Amino acid sequence: MTTSNLEVGYDVPAAIGMAEADIQTPCLVVDLDALERNIVTMGNYAKEMGVRHRVHGKMHKSVDIALLQEKLGDSCGVCCQKVSEAEVFARGGIKDVLVSNQVRDPAKIDRLARMPKLGARTLCCVDDIENVAELALAVKKHGTEIECLVEIDCGAGRCGVSEGQPVVDIAKAIHATPGLKFAGIQAYQGAMQHMESYEARKEKLDIAIGMVARTIEMLKAEGLECDIVGGGGTGSYYFEGNSGVFNELQCGSYAFMDADYQRILDKDGKKISEFENALFILTSVMSHTKADKAICDAGLKAQSVDSGLPYIFGRNDVEYIKCSDEHGVISDPNGTLKINEKLKLVPGHCDPTCNVHDYYVGVRNGKVEVLWPVSARGKAF
Amino acid sequence: MTTSNLEVGYDVPAAIGMAEADIQTPCLVVDLDALERNIVTMGNYAKEMGVRHRVHGKMHKSVDIALLQEKLGDSCGVCCQKVSEAEVFARGGIKDVLVSNQVRDPAKIDRLARMPKLGARTLCCVDDIENVAELALAVKKHGTEIECLVEIDCGAGRCGVSEGQPVVDIAKAIHATPGLKFAGIQAYQGAMQHMESYEARKEKLDIAIGMVARTIEMLKAEGLECDIVGGGGTGSYYFEGNSGVFNELQCGSYAFMDADYQRILDKDGKKISEFENALFILTSVMSHTKADKAICDAGLKAQSVDSGLPYIFGRNDVEYIKCSDEHGVISDPNGTLKINEKLKLVPGHCDPTCNVHDYYVGVRNGKVEVLWPVSARGKAF
Repeated sequence: MTTSNLEVGYDVPAAIGMAEADIQTPCLVVDLDALERNIVTMGNYAKEMGVRHRVHGKMHKSVDIALLQEKLGDSCGVCCQKVSEAEVFARGGIKDVLVSNQVRDPAKIDRLARMPKLGARTLCCVDDIENVAELALAVKKHGTEIECLVEIDCGAGRCGVSEGQPVVDIAKAIHATPGLKFAGIQAYQGAMQHMESYEARKEKLDIAIGMVARTIEMLKAEGLECDIVGGGGTGSYYFEGNSGVFNELQCGSYAFMDADYQRILDKDGKKISEFENALFILTSVMSHTKADKAICDAGLKAQSVDSGLPYIFGRNDVEYIKCSDEHGVISDPNGTLKINEKLKLVPGHCDPTCNVHDYYVGVRNGKVEVLWPVSARGKAF
Repeated sequence: MTTSNLEVGYDVPAAIGMAEADIQTPCLVVDLDALERNIVTMGNYAKEMGVRHRVHGKMHKSVDIALLQEKLGDSCGVCCQKVSEAEVFARGGIKDVLVSNQVRDPAKIDRLARMPKLGARTLCCVDDIENVAELALAVKKHGTEIECLVEIDCGAGRCGVSEGQPVVDIAKAIHATPGLKFAGIQAYQGAMQHMESYEARKEKLDIAIGMVARTIEMLKAEGLECDIVGGGGTGSYYFEGNSGVFNELQCGSYAFMDADYQRILDKDGKKISEFENALFILTSVMSHTKADKAICDAGLKAQSVDSGLPYIFGRNDVEYIKCSDEHGVISDPNGTLKINEKLKLVPGHCDPTCNVHDYYVGVRNGKVEVLWPVSARGKAF
């Protein structure tokens, strides 16, 4: 994209070619080398485990990053949570887009049914047999096809039906409906992703895998094959990937990482270290009237603190201890921070943090290399 | 604004004239009658107390609402926290704009010094004598004037110097500098605004008022008059307004209200009820596979939960109990909620919630009357 008619610091945080030191704060900075390595690493894991990787676009909401995940990580498509988000990815050139969520509002269903006209294979989840008729009417109106995954609640406690017969009932209804195609099962265990202990995560996922395996057998007995058995996140992908039951992963955070995912441990009790910090909130010190406390310019409007405060990357001497609307309080016991000194914060939770920013400033070797819009920012419909 | 070339549900949540029932969710809905009453009520309080009201634009980030506050509440101008935000208000026609924060980055200082050319009286805060020379260079370059308030940390523990001599030293430096004008004192006690007990809030504010009063006397002794003595929020305005020391209030949340401010009590131990709920996150039920739990479409990307979860307006039978990225879990013990049923959530904290949305849908008598952009959304620089 060109930034020639946009003013740095008013409309955009940086210009391409600018030195990293001149980026306006607070903003999201992406370490492009780390991002690319993360994408390649997860792509290789998926290949080794013999599964596809449908990357979760709801995390970054960026067409540019989704295309990079296709190019460097061999992703088979994108999943996301909202129809308006899915449209952004389809308009941006992603050819295979799953709304890994229920779509019930009539206007949203109508828009979903128009999505294949943008050139994208269009999928959504279903957890209520009444939804089948709603979707059918819309695809008939637009002369399109929607593929449907039946969602199992395998422990997340949100959307999805119970394993077994409820899935079969909905799958049969989809299969029998012109314009719809039964495509398989959605089974994302969202509640265990952030559990610290490997064993605790494994226990939850083993239960989920059992539910899915039993359901697949019941579907087979009815002559219904699952093209997609999808699920898995950054805290679980090795379980689904090696299960022999799932064939599509849906990881998001691995590309950027955040403080919350960095707390989880591997089977040896060590912090999971495969993925690097690629996303930072760049912030500047803008007040330092107390000897041991500095105030920075990244508060609640530069991040989401739902999963805890950010930590300061590469610094053990200073700590982000309090967050208000536009300020962060940084403990600086030795009084080393200077006015305008820049710090990189690792956000507590990357997904909702990305959603408050308009741009990613991609840096390499100290220079701004790309300025990517957060293409689906605010696309909540 | 016109929405003729914008698609409802993709770009915008509603069209003007649309029935309230057809608004796309999740989005911010404003009860225009309640908003107008809140604005008039606070305007009257300020008049009765004999103080000006400089409304806090960082709360709503909306030029339209700031102009309404001028028209219906006789506000004397706007304060906000960022230069890029201030530019939005100045470009939108607000003639008196205070950045109630420190501005230290050279690029931001340069933009601030250009702001008077947009036709707005331009003010900022200073809490470091070195900032005086930085600001002076920029106004000299642009041939403009910036008025400066010296910020006292009167208990918030963020920006600001101690009362007394440190204020006088900076004020004298400002006064002696061509292009800068010493305009008074900024003293916002942010840490007490949300304390539940009236007495606890009063105790903190009495301390703050004492600091400010003593400092004003010391400034007077040096021949320095304070045109502005500013501070006060929705949890404290009656203290500053009746102090005889402050002459400008800076309230924000009163216009919308939120769950956090509704927890505070008045001197009779009752919930403060002067201000009505004017802001809601409109959400729809989109899954209900468990008998006693419904899932709605407003999660962390439709609000900030830093000050707690939202509550459901006008309903005692259902409760918002859990928030994930795109979903809210609603306890529905009687199983009364239906798919696509709409609920109004009162956000835990209005400021950062407004900052994730692009529009306010203003409704009156069941119809969409206005669609206001969140003009300074994402303007964090």
